[in-house]
Amino acid sequence: MIDRLISAIEEKENPSVVGLDPTLEMMPQFLKEDMFRKFGKTPKAVSNMFLEFNKAIIDEIYPIVPSVKPQIAMYEKYGLEGIDCYLQTVDYARKKGLIVIGDIKRGDISSTAGAYAGHIEGCDIEGIHFDLWQEDFVTVNPYLGSDGIEPFVKACEKEKRGIFVLLKTSNKSSSEIQDRLVENKPLYIHVAELINKWGKNSVGSMGFSSVGAVVGATHPKEGVELRDICPNVFFLVPGYGAQGGKAEDLKGFFDKNKRGAIVNSSRGIIAAYKKIEGAKEEDFAKYSKDAVLLMRDDLMKAFK
Amino acid sequence: MIDRLISAIEEKENPSVVGLDPTLEMMPQFLKEDMFRKFGKTPKAVSNMFLEFNKAIIDEIYPIVPSVKPQIAMYEKYGLEGIDCYLQTVDYARKKGLIVIGDIKRGDISSTAGAYAGHIEGCDIEGIHFDLWQEDFVTVNPYLGSDGIEPFVKACEKEKRGIFVLLKTSNKSSSEIQDRLVENKPLYIHVAELINKWGKNSVGSMGFSSVGAVVGATHPKEGVELRDICPNVFFLVPGYGAQGGKAEDLKGFFDKNKRGAIVNSSRGIIAAYKKIEGAKEEDFAKYSKDAVLLMRDDLMKAFK
Repeated sequence: MIDRLISAIEEKENPSVVGLDPTLEMMPQFLKEDMFRKFGKTPKAVSNMFLEFNKAIIDEIYPIVPSVKPQIAMYEKYGLEGIDCYLQTVDYARKKGLIVIGDIKRGDISSTAGAYAGHIEGCDIEGIHFDLWQEDFVTVNPYLGSDGIEPFVKACEKEKRGIFVLLKTSNKSSSEIQDRLVENKPLYIHVAELINKWGKNSVGSMGFSSVGAVVGATHPKEGVELRDICPNVFFLVPGYGAQGGKAEDLKGFFDKNKRGAIVNSSRGIIAAYKKIEGAKEEDFAKYSKDAVLLMRDDLMKAFK
Repeated sequence: MIDRLISAIEEKENPSVVGLDPTLEMMPQFLKEDMFRKFGKTPKAVSNMFLEFNKAIIDEIYPIVPSVKPQIAMYEKYGLEGIDCYLQTVDYARKKGLIVIGDIKRGDISSTAGAYAGHIEGCDIEGIHFDLWQEDFVTVNPYLGSDGIEPFVKACEKEKRGIFVLLKTSNKSSSEIQDRLVENKPLYIHVAELINKWGKNSVGSMGFSSVGAVVGATHPKEGVELRDICPNVFFLVPGYGAQGGKAEDLKGFFDKNKRGAIVNSSRGIIAAYKKIEGAKEEDFAKYSKDAVLLMRDDLMKAFK
């Protein structure tokens, strides 16, 4: 799957991923009104408006981005109806040929991690296989150590999918735990070494393993350092745009072949119409497409 | 909510919590056959059998335990139908007066953590409030630092619910990250200090805050040490029974008033019938009740 992701980035000449993280606040008024009229002021209405919103954006962007990353928390907030929308979004995006990174950040002890690994390996019921979640990649949390990660690593090998392990996250307080000095090196360096180990058996033909890492765009210095320590680890880079990460800071996250990272933007893309004066709400998805093209050009310029 | 949990423990004279972590392997044959006949070999069948299984166990144990802890991963494995079963289990347990600890181990950056906090604070749709998940407590992961925890802390204050932050987990590889030495102390001690800080504004009338911690029964030495460092932090203690934790090792997790911890057992209780030779499958829930009583006596003996 990591080879497929790299190929898709190169085909579309766009190392970016669109975060499908809808909120009620960013819904266009006409869509809100329509769904509240049909379903009342209910989670079902929110689920339906998020789905219409996501589909319209996917329809505009699927030819120009390799991947989308729905953040499950935004859907989980609205209970079962919300999760239903998440699942339908994943399904729709895959049918359009997009690679789906499920931002689920799960992590637990071994047997339980095995159950969460169902996100990428599905489940078996009396010999019948069900791929109920369908994500191509998921994000996972390393705080519990190897036995919480290994079920995912095995699932990746079996199903040819992938994971991104939280390494150095984009938020400010990431330093509270991740930067603490352990044997004179920040903890995230030790996590990076674990990630190298977890991925060593799954390095694909393009030089990267199925076990990637999340490294925030807000930490350019650490990005360069980690690129060097983890030559075979593909980076998922959140924090560009709304969180303050800039294209010129991102060069170091890529290797000399301009490979090795995919940069996420969520609000900056999907809520683009909100930032444009006089924007026609009905055209919200077209503004998202424009924002994708701007982001692509911004990233590409930084490579030159 | 922490006061309510402590009161319930004292009323029922039982500092234990039953982990509702069903697997297909532990389902009684008659229940499996019944549901496969009704719904085919599908996630819907699994969801329905897990729900019947949980309800039968809850019916037997609700007078003798204060709390249950469904592990969401076991349900998430079966997709939307699985989550539906989780939600119905939470609802059923609460209606029986049980305090529900949702073992969800969520953790993300601030705005996203805010969406996950919907588990305990519900969501608002145009001024209408929905409590869609209903858990009284949830478990959370500290790897992202304060800004990933604070939305939960605020939600606890607002809704009078609680969280348990992963501190020193019960699994073997917990040492890989959690025991690394930072300024000559293991990382978990630093996390303990953060937990003290996160909970300092919510200490209830019984001396404990809404911000508890997960400390594995498999680490008795660390339990004593953490009890001392965190006098106001209530411990959720997994790892008793199946994972090897013993009652005599658990005394140190409690304070001098015999307060401060609740001990979880999952498989040891809900799959008890599987360990008993000649057990009648139809009576699986009664065996669970017997196992709860044995565990209670085992814990109580250790206090003497």
